[in-house]
Amino acid sequence: MVTVTDSRELARACADAMWSTDQASKGLGMALESVEPGRAVLSMTVRDVMVNGHGICHGGFIATLADSTFAFSCNTHNVVTVASGFEIDFLESAHLGDELRAEGREVVLRGRSGIYDVTVRRGETVIAVFRGRSRSLGRPILEETS
Amino acid sequence: MVTVTDSRELARACADAMWSTDQASKGLGMALESVEPGRAVLSMTVRDVMVNGHGICHGGFIATLADSTFAFSCNTHNVVTVASGFEIDFLESAHLGDELRAEGREVVLRGRSGIYDVTVRRGETVIAVFRGRSRSLGRPILEETS
Amino acid sequence: MVTVTDSRELARACADAMWSTDQASKGLGMALESVEPGRAVLSMTVRDVMVNGHGICHGGFIATLADSTFAFSCNTHNVVTVASGFEIDFLESAHLGDELRAEGREVVLRGRSGIYDVTVRRGETVIAVFRGRSRSLGRPILEETS
Amino acid sequence: MVTVTDSRELARACADAMWSTDQASKGLGMALESVEPGRAVLSMTVRDVMVNGHGICHGGFIATLADSTFAFSCNTHNVVTVASGFEIDFLESAHLGDELRAEGREVVLRGRSGIYDVTVRRGETVIAVFRGRSRSLGRPILEETS
Repeated sequence: MVTVTDSRELARACADAMWSTDQASKGLGMALESVEPGRAVLSMTVRDVMVNGHGICHGGFIATLADSTFAFSCNTHNVVTVASGFEIDFLESAHLGDELRAEGREVVLRGRSGIYDVTVRRGETVIAVFRGRSRSLGRPILEETS
Repeated sequence: MVTVTDSRELARACADAMWSTDQASKGLGMALESVEPGRAVLSMTVRDVMVNGHGICHGGFIATLADSTFAFSCNTHNVVTVASGFEIDFLESAHLGDELRAEGREVVLRGRSGIYDVTVRRGETVIAVFRGRSRSLGRPILEETS
Repeated sequence: MVTVTDSRELARACADAMWSTDQASKGLGMALESVEPGRAVLSMTVRDVMVNGHGICHGGFIATLADSTFAFSCNTHNVVTVASGFEIDFLESAHLGDELRAEGREVVLRGRSGIYDVTVRRGETVIAVFRGRSRSLGRPILEETS
Repeated sequence: MVTVTDSRELARACADAMWSTDQASKGLGMALESVEPGRAVLSMTVRDVMVNGHGICHGGFIATLADSTFAFSCNTHNVVTVASGFEIDFLESAHLGDELRAEGREVVLRGRSGIYDVTVRRGETVIAVFRGRSRSLGRPILEETS
């Protein structure tokens, strides 16, 4: 049995539990760089399977990186939380081989509803900004600590 | 040299040109069901690599299906057109093996800016609604017809 | 005591109950053109108090017209329903004296959550498109019919 | 003739020029608290004409406050800039007499397109979060300094 009392340790334990079964994010080559309460950083390199008909990274994969970052950010309080929707603006194209880094942060959490912002960058350049709306399901992520 | 005078034939020719190089959509197993001016229908089956940490299809892949459908819908007028952003609302979870069908349609096209709606369904059930904002780059998709 | 069995009559009764206390919509000179289950049409003329610093109608008033239309559309099922948020795209400017007409319709209603689209037009010209997200509070609008 | 070389002075001069003709914002009782490059703070008290059918402030007026704050934030670089659209999430109701304060900030500005976030608060409580998309028209706000 695990007893987690620190909010940073709790965030990490939640992220580890989610990551272990997240074939989707792992399958796209994402790496979980860091996690803390209400925040997460993920990175991903643009692969050839992500390139679309205009020769640039399909926006869907940039959105997927942002959506994963959102999911890891909002699931740091040991409450299973899902996306009810999101909004993304694409500012720059990403290309094959680009290393993308997405930083997520909690803007506001009110009852079961939350708003999270994610910024996707290549180096210092902002590629996309994303705003996610979350809804918690009320049950714990970590059985042992509930 | 191809001469395309009919708007439906033109839409189809644009879609064929895009599809031939769209590794991203093809790599996810999408099928281009139909295309006509301002409209496209794509389908995709949820694969095991698309399942996330909660045991349901990662929202990013649903968004990617919708984003591809948006791209095929807005690139039917033989003008290279890119997404400036989109908004998606998730209404139901999708699961492994679900067959998803996305229908896109032009809401409004004004100068270089357009709005496109995509509805993603499993059978009759609406899984997600998506609204994309497009921006045309002004150059033709099909060199021969410009 | 009122007994309302028809869904169209119910929608009308809900709208009448809301309208009677809606100082905001009335104060801006809006007119409730029609209402039916999941749908409403409102109109508003752009007044001099709505003009902004660029000499055009402040987008906020166009959004307010759309938001009222959304509210009347989603409160047609005799369940108090509020906006959790909305998204609006401005396609054309509106000017002093323009008569604006906003048509709202239910896109999807799933449990307590709904999506409603509103199109704002001046004549045949689309001025703005709006998508609202609603959340019902579960209690009736009309006490007598609950 | 005015010569403005400092970016803060320029922001202020732009705001003053806009404010002088902005009947809409003034008519709703808004006050321009502060302005600096890419940022503005506006406040507004909820009046009886802003109350809707549920006895709470019509979301449209909260959106209008946020939209004005967005407009003053994005018009600080002496380039006429308009809203192409926005997204707002309502987190708490506002009531008659509430003093609302909206803070806007530039998230990113790339060529003619920008993203601005506005947070509306009553005291420390976040009432709404807003994200605006701007498009510059390329011409100066202040004739003298162009």
